[in-house]
Amino acid sequence: MDTARRVLVSARSPDTRVTPFEGIADWLAERLRAGRFDVARIPFEELRGWSFHPGTGNLHHASGRFFSVEGLHVRTDRMPERGWTQPIIVQPEVGLLGIVAREIDGVLHFLMQAKMEPGNVNILQVSPTVQATRSNFTGVHQGRDIRFLDLFLEPGRVRVLVDSIQSEQADWFLAKRNRNMIVELAPDDDIATGEDFRWLTLGQIRRLLLRDNVVNMDARSILACLPTADADSTDDSAGASPVHRSFFGSPTHARHTMAEVLTWFTGVRALRELVQNRVPLDSVTADGWYRTRHEIAHESGRHFRVIAAEVTASSREVASWTQPLIEPQVPGLMALLVKPIDGVLHALVQARVDVGHLNVAELAPTVQCRPAEHTRPDGAPYPPYLGQVLSAPVDSFRYDAVQSEEGGRFYHAQNRYAIVEVSPGFPEDVPDDFAWLTLAQLTTLLAHGNYLNIELRTLVACALTLP
Amino acid sequence: MDTARRVLVSARSPDTRVTPFEGIADWLAERLRAGRFDVARIPFEELRGWSFHPGTGNLHHASGRFFSVEGLHVRTDRMPERGWTQPIIVQPEVGLLGIVAREIDGVLHFLMQAKMEPGNVNILQVSPTVQATRSNFTGVHQGRDIRFLDLFLEPGRVRVLVDSIQSEQADWFLAKRNRNMIVELAPDDDIATGEDFRWLTLGQIRRLLLRDNVVNMDARSILACLPTADADSTDDSAGASPVHRSFFGSPTHARHTMAEVLTWFTGVRALRELVQNRVPLDSVTADGWYRTRHEIAHESGRHFRVIAAEVTASSREVASWTQPLIEPQVPGLMALLVKPIDGVLHALVQARVDVGHLNVAELAPTVQCRPAEHTRPDGAPYPPYLGQVLSAPVDSFRYDAVQSEEGGRFYHAQNRYAIVEVSPGFPEDVPDDFAWLTLAQLTTLLAHGNYLNIELRTLVACALTLP
Repeated sequence: MDTARRVLVSARSPDTRVTPFEGIADWLAERLRAGRFDVARIPFEELRGWSFHPGTGNLHHASGRFFSVEGLHVRTDRMPERGWTQPIIVQPEVGLLGIVAREIDGVLHFLMQAKMEPGNVNILQVSPTVQATRSNFTGVHQGRDIRFLDLFLEPGRVRVLVDSIQSEQADWFLAKRNRNMIVELAPDDDIATGEDFRWLTLGQIRRLLLRDNVVNMDARSILACLPTADADSTDDSAGASPVHRSFFGSPTHARHTMAEVLTWFTGVRALRELVQNRVPLDSVTADGWYRTRHEIAHESGRHFRVIAAEVTASSREVASWTQPLIEPQVPGLMALLVKPIDGVLHALVQARVDVGHLNVAELAPTVQCRPAEHTRPDGAPYPPYLGQVLSAPVDSFRYDAVQSEEGGRFYHAQNRYAIVEVSPGFPEDVPDDFAWLTLAQLTTLLAHGNYLNIELRTLVACALTLP
Repeated sequence: MDTARRVLVSARSPDTRVTPFEGIADWLAERLRAGRFDVARIPFEELRGWSFHPGTGNLHHASGRFFSVEGLHVRTDRMPERGWTQPIIVQPEVGLLGIVAREIDGVLHFLMQAKMEPGNVNILQVSPTVQATRSNFTGVHQGRDIRFLDLFLEPGRVRVLVDSIQSEQADWFLAKRNRNMIVELAPDDDIATGEDFRWLTLGQIRRLLLRDNVVNMDARSILACLPTADADSTDDSAGASPVHRSFFGSPTHARHTMAEVLTWFTGVRALRELVQNRVPLDSVTADGWYRTRHEIAHESGRHFRVIAAEVTASSREVASWTQPLIEPQVPGLMALLVKPIDGVLHALVQARVDVGHLNVAELAPTVQCRPAEHTRPDGAPYPPYLGQVLSAPVDSFRYDAVQSEEGGRFYHAQNRYAIVEVSPGFPEDVPDDFAWLTLAQLTTLLAHGNYLNIELRTLVACALTLP
């Protein structure tokens, strides 16, 4: 197909006439200098518009919009009978994460934004064209209009390349989802951008993904959903037309057929149990959580903290605001074991049940944990395959970088993302909750929502960097 | 493929050597005589094990299992700001609805059960091999073991033909889902069945679907998920191999590509709003609901009633029990407008937002309503296309029968299901929430959960009867 051929050029020749790769760092540094963005931690009582509800202790905004921090009681088949209670972010609305694409001189380019977020360790990261909450659409925050939002909401002017509703962190969010979109302008349809935006090729973005904390979570999530070309398939059921060919292989040369994959995953969803009940935030104290003027945290020092921050910005819809943020206690490790099976690269994924899931289980990286909680003397038992990753030879890491979770909600939430190629003799028989899938099978599933969790989607995006 | 050819035989020659079609009615009548099954309405205080929680008014079982009747507060973008409160059944577990299939003399047969349910108007209907709640698996009701359940839970002995988790009535259930499965025994693998079971062909079941209230809801839901053959496709992404060829057509000869269908539906899910909050059942009185000793109902006489019943049975795991049931006030009309577009039959479906949905919207019949609530003098405005269906010429009804909703939860819940072929000139431009899809596209989506609601799945099963 023309589409696939077109972008092969991009994948092989990252430099374009629009922004040389070497100029991207300068652009980001320049934008960082141009925007003022101060983040200060404040006590909860200095939050404006936010307060703890007297009856429940829930932390919410006076408008009833944005999000709230509430309590969640969860019971699963692998927990003690009485379950577990924790704080959780409740935000039932579906936001929009969108990238505008456009062919320039025969190469597909993506309009990326240098965007500041209060939780980013480095303030500014390469972000999608648009990140909008439903509150943004409906104007609750009374900010300026979101640029380019109309291209995603008004069909006709663009061609849709990616459009699916995907989940976010299930440790911290209750069933949060965002719509992930890529829309393509006609080649002769120009739009005015400005200094916060640059047209980058997929090849350039792949190189940026090799660096720590440059490509933000929302951009990674969207790019993971790019359909991959499959030379054998006339498949029309998986969503949009393929946009890039890759080493991801054909879904038809996989260890398991898609029917086998779906019945395995359906079995996990049906037989594992996840019963969620929203409860007052005040009630989480029963499970060791406490609240001070500055934080809600767990007495074990594990899990995460809820904090409050004041943000002053020059480049956002609202110049100054306060908000709660979630701060993890220790970094996580998200690792994907991969190996060729019959000549096609396969990834070992787990069907994982997490507290905030909309639909019981989602596919996750081979290892998704916070290693410090396991490696210390009084730590929890190792999850499967953590030992393999921690002891893997350096040259088996085919990808290894630190990436940030979304800086609009999470404060300094950094995780190590790794793709580790195991030896040919590594067992293909795996525990019931695990399965070997090709990367093409993973992207096929991404035409639908709630199959791949956000951590696995980041790793699918990172896998774009593999030769 | 052999599989597809094999079942063509079944579809075209309904009679088999196992049970002649004429014998099915005798079998059902005989089973009805053989089993004693009495259903008596009782006041709530005579429920055993069930009680109204003193603090909330929620109706629940002492074991904490089965299901509960609670309150639900819902807000959508098309409701008044303060939303709407109603009773709702909460049953977060995923049950199993399964049919065992087996090739007999080259024709695929399905093991159907003559099963009694308290809510059935005619007590006994043709049901799947297995209907099991998670409570059944885990033995909370302390009944006898469920026959054939092991064939669905222990992989290896069977081939999986259908396996997906599908939703149930979103008016009455909060995000209820059941796993829908068909598993096929090897031809030489025999199982002992018994008088409650018969091996029926798809052709026989199709003929039964032409009659009122014979094939139960769970059987219809499972059969709707049968993959359809598509001569052009090498599609491996949609789930199991095709089991029957039909007039459903190829997804590739449709008015819209699947990518277009998915982006349309994703847009509805993202842009419509559905915010659900569980509230005490006592609080639904604020919206006109009242509770007496015998029922919870709405003062308008609309919607549904919660009642209690005592059931005495000779053929069930437990010989006598009491339980709450939901009784609709008036029957519903579920109608699908169809017409050929470029030679392929298309169905007009709506993306509908209902109070109990797991994920905002699901695809529904063209018309899904209770006509009596609209046709009476003080009735609500007509929903789109209700007028067309009510005034359609008799000879445009290609399917028209009364079918029951699930008799284990719903008391005398009968709906008219109709497939109406509109004239060639009927407009193909439709409101934003509606779209023309081929039936093959609908079955492709049924490889995944929460795309088609239970009412539309019944109509897909009924469409199997079309020539």
